[in-house]
Amino acid sequence: MRPLILISNDDGLEYPGIQTLIDIAKPLGDVVVVSPLRHQSGMSNAITIVTPLRAYKSIDEEGYTVWQVDGTPTDCMKLALDQLLGGRRPDLVLSGINHGYNAGVSTIYSGTIGVILEAVARHIPAIAFSSGSIERDIDFTPCLSIIDGIIRNALSNLEALRDVCLNVNMPAGIAHFEGVKLTTTAIGHWEKEYDHRVDPHGGDYYWLQGSYVSDDPEDDKNDLYWLKRGWVSVTPLHVDQTAFEAFSAMSSLLKI
Amino acid sequence: MRPLILISNDDGLEYPGIQTLIDIAKPLGDVVVVSPLRHQSGMSNAITIVTPLRAYKSIDEEGYTVWQVDGTPTDCMKLALDQLLGGRRPDLVLSGINHGYNAGVSTIYSGTIGVILEAVARHIPAIAFSSGSIERDIDFTPCLSIIDGIIRNALSNLEALRDVCLNVNMPAGIAHFEGVKLTTTAIGHWEKEYDHRVDPHGGDYYWLQGSYVSDDPEDDKNDLYWLKRGWVSVTPLHVDQTAFEAFSAMSSLLKI
Repeated sequence: MRPLILISNDDGLEYPGIQTLIDIAKPLGDVVVVSPLRHQSGMSNAITIVTPLRAYKSIDEEGYTVWQVDGTPTDCMKLALDQLLGGRRPDLVLSGINHGYNAGVSTIYSGTIGVILEAVARHIPAIAFSSGSIERDIDFTPCLSIIDGIIRNALSNLEALRDVCLNVNMPAGIAHFEGVKLTTTAIGHWEKEYDHRVDPHGGDYYWLQGSYVSDDPEDDKNDLYWLKRGWVSVTPLHVDQTAFEAFSAMSSLLKI
Repeated sequence: MRPLILISNDDGLEYPGIQTLIDIAKPLGDVVVVSPLRHQSGMSNAITIVTPLRAYKSIDEEGYTVWQVDGTPTDCMKLALDQLLGGRRPDLVLSGINHGYNAGVSTIYSGTIGVILEAVARHIPAIAFSSGSIERDIDFTPCLSIIDGIIRNALSNLEALRDVCLNVNMPAGIAHFEGVKLTTTAIGHWEKEYDHRVDPHGGDYYWLQGSYVSDDPEDDKNDLYWLKRGWVSVTPLHVDQTAFEAFSAMSSLLKI
C-alpha cells in the first residue's frame, strides 16, 4: 500500500509553497491536504475552543484529496486525524513550504511548526519546510531536490521520527545550497518590536516589527548561523519543554 | 526600589483568577497588569501580525497600573515590554491564575504558558499559575499561601529563573494540598477530539472536546500524576524545543 502523506501549512491553499510540496509528495504516496481556509501565520499551536470548525472538500480524486478548515494549522491537524481521514493514520505529515524562515525562537510562534508538533505528540513522523524568502512568487527550484531527498529518506526510516519531528529551513536567493546541516534552535528575542503610530483621530496603535537578537551570535551549531552561510538547516524538535537541566536549581524555590 | 511585577493571563481581566493573583502580588511590588481584552484560551504563543494592536489603560495609580490589549497573551507581553512599561524591565512576570489545568501536553496550547515563555526568552523570571477547576466562581483560598510562597521565594532568588520559567498547577476541589512536587510534563495526546454535529441546513460542524491519554500513565514524575493525588505540581520549562537526544539518530536522514 502506498504511504499516506498528510499535508498542511499556515499560509493557506493558494500559496505556491504548499502547491510545490504537494507536487513533490504526490509521486511518493496518497496525499491528503488539510490546510487553513484563511492565512494563519504566527498562530503557533493555537486551537479553536469556543466556536466549532467547518471543513470544505475541494478535490476528491484517487490518491489525492484536498480539504480546507476554517481554523488554525493545529485545528487542521486535529480535525484531519480525528475526522477527515476516516480513521486512517498518516505515515508522514508535511508542513509548508512556508514563505519565510521558521528558525531561531520564531519557531515557537509558527503555525507551520504547530502542524508538526501536533503530529509528533501522537508519534506520527512529521517534517516542516520553510524558505527564507517571504515573497509569494519565490522560485522554489533550488529546494526541490532537497525536499524530495529528505522526504524519501524519512519514508524509508519512519521509526527514527517516532518522538522527534524535523524543522527544515532553506536559504533564500541562492541557486545552490552549500549542503545540509543538523542544527539547534538559535535562542534569542526580538528588539524594537513595535512601530507606534497615531491614527487620524489621535488614537495610538502598534504594528509588530522588530529585529532578532541571538543570545550567542558566535554559536556555530544553530540554524540561523548556517542559514546565513548558505546551508539548509535541519533542526530536530520534540514536544516536551520540561527544563530537566534546571531541576536541582529549582528545589530551593519550592521550600514553602 | 520595589520590584516591578508584570501580570497577564489568557482569560482576560474580568476573571477572578487574575484578580486573585493581583491581590497577592500588590504587597510584594509595583504591579503592572497587561491582559487580553478578549478571552484567549488555547492561543498558545500566537502573535498578531496582519493587524495592529491597541492598548487601553483602565487603572493608573501609584504602584498599580492596568492595561488591556486587543490581542493574544503573547501580544500583551511583547507590547508591555516594548512600549507600555516605558522601558522599565520587570523583575518578575506572573501569569494566571488560569481557570483550568495547564498540565501535560495542554501546555503547548496554553496562552497562560505563552506569557511565561515570552518572558523567559528574554531571561525575565516568570511563573504561571493554573487551577484544576474551570469554574468561574472557584474558591482560590487553598491556593493563596502556595502562590504567595512561590512568588516570595522567586523574588529572593531571581537569578535561578534566568533560563527557566515555572508552570505551577494546583489541584481543584480540595481544601489542603498534600504538598509541592517538582515535576515533568506528562506527554500524551487527546482522543475522540471532535463532536461531529449537523446544522439545521445539513452542514457538518465539529466541536473540540476529547479525553487525554498519557503515553505513560504509570510515570510517577509528571505533573498529571501528582495533581491527581492532591499535590501542587511545579514544572520548569524552557523555550528551546531542540531534540538534542535525537541528533545521532538523525544523521542518516540527512544523506541526500
